[in-house]
Amino acid sequence: MIQPPELYFNAAAQSYLNDLKERLSFSKLFVLTDTNTSNKCLPTFKKHLGHSDFVEITCEAGELHKNLQSCSAIWSTLTAHKADRNALMVLLGGGVLTDMGAFAASCYKRGIRFLNIPTTLLAMVDASTGSKTGIDFEGLKNHIGLFSSPVATLVDQHYLNTLDQRNLKSGVAEMFKHGLIYNSDHWRNLTENHSKPERLIEDSVAIKIEIVTQDPTEKGLRKILNFGHTLGHAIETHFLETSEQLLHGEAIALGMILEAYLSHSNGSLTKDELDEITRMLCVFYELPKLTEADRKAIIPLLQHDKKNSANAIQFVGLKRIGEAIYDVQYSAKAIDEAFDFYDRSTCR
Amino acid sequence: MIQPPELYFNAAAQSYLNDLKERLSFSKLFVLTDTNTSNKCLPTFKKHLGHSDFVEITCEAGELHKNLQSCSAIWSTLTAHKADRNALMVLLGGGVLTDMGAFAASCYKRGIRFLNIPTTLLAMVDASTGSKTGIDFEGLKNHIGLFSSPVATLVDQHYLNTLDQRNLKSGVAEMFKHGLIYNSDHWRNLTENHSKPERLIEDSVAIKIEIVTQDPTEKGLRKILNFGHTLGHAIETHFLETSEQLLHGEAIALGMILEAYLSHSNGSLTKDELDEITRMLCVFYELPKLTEADRKAIIPLLQHDKKNSANAIQFVGLKRIGEAIYDVQYSAKAIDEAFDFYDRSTCR
Repeated sequence: MIQPPELYFNAAAQSYLNDLKERLSFSKLFVLTDTNTSNKCLPTFKKHLGHSDFVEITCEAGELHKNLQSCSAIWSTLTAHKADRNALMVLLGGGVLTDMGAFAASCYKRGIRFLNIPTTLLAMVDASTGSKTGIDFEGLKNHIGLFSSPVATLVDQHYLNTLDQRNLKSGVAEMFKHGLIYNSDHWRNLTENHSKPERLIEDSVAIKIEIVTQDPTEKGLRKILNFGHTLGHAIETHFLETSEQLLHGEAIALGMILEAYLSHSNGSLTKDELDEITRMLCVFYELPKLTEADRKAIIPLLQHDKKNSANAIQFVGLKRIGEAIYDVQYSAKAIDEAFDFYDRSTCR
Repeated sequence: MIQPPELYFNAAAQSYLNDLKERLSFSKLFVLTDTNTSNKCLPTFKKHLGHSDFVEITCEAGELHKNLQSCSAIWSTLTAHKADRNALMVLLGGGVLTDMGAFAASCYKRGIRFLNIPTTLLAMVDASTGSKTGIDFEGLKNHIGLFSSPVATLVDQHYLNTLDQRNLKSGVAEMFKHGLIYNSDHWRNLTENHSKPERLIEDSVAIKIEIVTQDPTEKGLRKILNFGHTLGHAIETHFLETSEQLLHGEAIALGMILEAYLSHSNGSLTKDELDEITRMLCVFYELPKLTEADRKAIIPLLQHDKKNSANAIQFVGLKRIGEAIYDVQYSAKAIDEAFDFYDRSTCR
C-alpha cells in the first residue's frame, strides 16, 4: 500500500533535518543534487543539516537528462560507495530530480529510503508529495517509473528565493489546477490574492494529499490530478529540445485552457467559467502561439498518454470550477476546435 | 503490501491459461520469451492458451543478458505496440527471464500486470514465487530491482521435459535449501527419494510461500532463503563469463557447503549434519575445484551482497537441518577455513 509521505513545513522541516541522523539512523547519507541545486541550494541544506557526513551525487539539470543514463550514473556512484540497503538518499531539487532520484533509490538493491526536499514551487506542490516516480523514455514523459513514497517531504520555502519569476509562475499552474479540480475557494484565493503565499502553498499541498490518499495508485479519483496534463504533456513533449521549450507549468496552463474548452464543448462547464479560467491563465502566463504544424505534431502524441485504455484517449473534465470528472472522451473534431478556441483567445 | 502470487499447478495451470482472456480482461497480450523458450516452450503455451492473440517479445537467453539493455528493448517493443496500462505480459522462461520481465513490466507506465510461467525447475521452486524482480548491474546480481508480484504463477511440469539433466539438478539445489532452512522432512524426502517429483515440487513451493508470506520485503525471517547465497552469489559472479561458468543451483550448492561449514565452525551445526549435507551435495553435483586465485577473487565480491549492513557481511546460519538463523557474522579466518574444508572434502 502506497502511503503519502509525512510532510514538514519550514521551521519543522529545518528541525527534521537537524535531527536527521537520530530520526532515520541510516548507514550512509547520499545527497542527490543537479548542477543548479548543487550551487544554489546545497549551502542552505548544509546549514540546516545536523552533524552528518554525506556523499553528494550531482546530475545534469533539466528534463533532457531525466533518463536511464542518469539513473545508471546514480546507481554506479551508490555502488562505488558501497551503499547498503540501510543507506538514505536526500533528493534536493525540482520535480525532474525528485522523480528520477526516487525511481533510482526505489530500484537500488530493491529499494533504499529517500527523503524529498523540493526546491522549486512546482516540486513542493506537486512532484514531491505524489509518490509517483519516473524517467522519460524515447521522448515519452515518465514512461518508465513506479509508485514509491519518500520517508518524508520537507517543504522549506527558503529555497524559493533561488527561483526566477518564470519558474515560480510555473509552479503556480499546479496550484491553479488544485483549485479548479477540487476546491473553488483555493482557486479564488489564488486568483484574488487573498492569502499569504505560505498559506496558499500549504493549502495546495493539502488538496493534493487529500486526493492521493483516497486513491494512491490512480485507479480512479486520483486521475483528476491529470487535468490539463493530457494535452499539456503532449505540448511539453512537442516543444522539448526546441528553442521554444516550455516549463512544465506553462505547458499545463495551456493544456488547462484547451481542456476547459473541451469541458465546455460537451456542456459541463459554463461559458462564464471557461472565460474566467482562460482570462486568468492567459494574463498570468506568456503562452506561445500554436501553428498548424504544431497542432499536427501534438495530437498524435496523445496516443502515448499513460491514462489511455484500449486506444481511447482519456481526459479529465471540469463540471464546474472546483469539481472534476475523469475518463472523459472527446471527438477529434472537438479537440481541433479547442485549438481553434485557444488560437482566437486574447492571450497574445 | 506485497502478496505472494496465486499458484496453479499442472491441470489447473492449463485451465487458467485456457480462460486467460475471461479471467484477466487485458487490453493486449504480450509474451516474453528468450531464444530457448521461444523454440522449446512457446508451442506448448500456444496449445493451452485460449483464443487470444499476442505479441511475442524475445530476449537473448542467459544471465549475461539480464541487464538494462534488455529491459530497454522490452520497453521499446511495448511502446511500439502502444501497450497501455491494462496490457498483460506473460513471462515464459527461467528465473533470468521472469526476474527481468517482472522488473520491466513493473516499471512500464508505473506498472502493468504480469503472469509467470516458469519453464525451469529453478524458476518453479524459487524465482517465480518470490515477488523479487531484478536485473544485474555492473556484474552484481539483481543489483537493480523491486519487490513486485505476478497476478499468478502457473507451474506446469510439462515444461520440465525441455530441460537437460544439469539444469534439472540446478533447480533441486533450491529445494534442498528449503529443506535445510525450514523443514527437515522435506530434506529427507529429497535425499531419500521417498516422494514423487510432482509432490516434492509442490511441497518446496509451499515452504517458499510460507516463508515469504511472513516477511514479503525481507526485513527479517525471509533472509533465511539466502542460505548458501552469500558465498554462492559471489562464486556465481566470479565464474560468470568464464569457461567454467556455473549454473545458479551449482553455485548455491557450493555456497551451502561453505556456509554449512561456517555454521558448524561457530558451534551451531553438528559435525554429523555438516557431513551429511556435504556428502549429499558433493555426490549430487559436479562441483569445481577452487584455486587460491579463485578464493582471492571471490571473497572481495562479498562486499556487495544486498544483505550487508554497515559494511558487515551478513550470513544465514543453520542451527540444525530444518532450522536457520539470519544476520550471522563470521571472521575472515572462518571464511578462509570454509574454503579449506571444501578443498579437503571428497567432492572431486
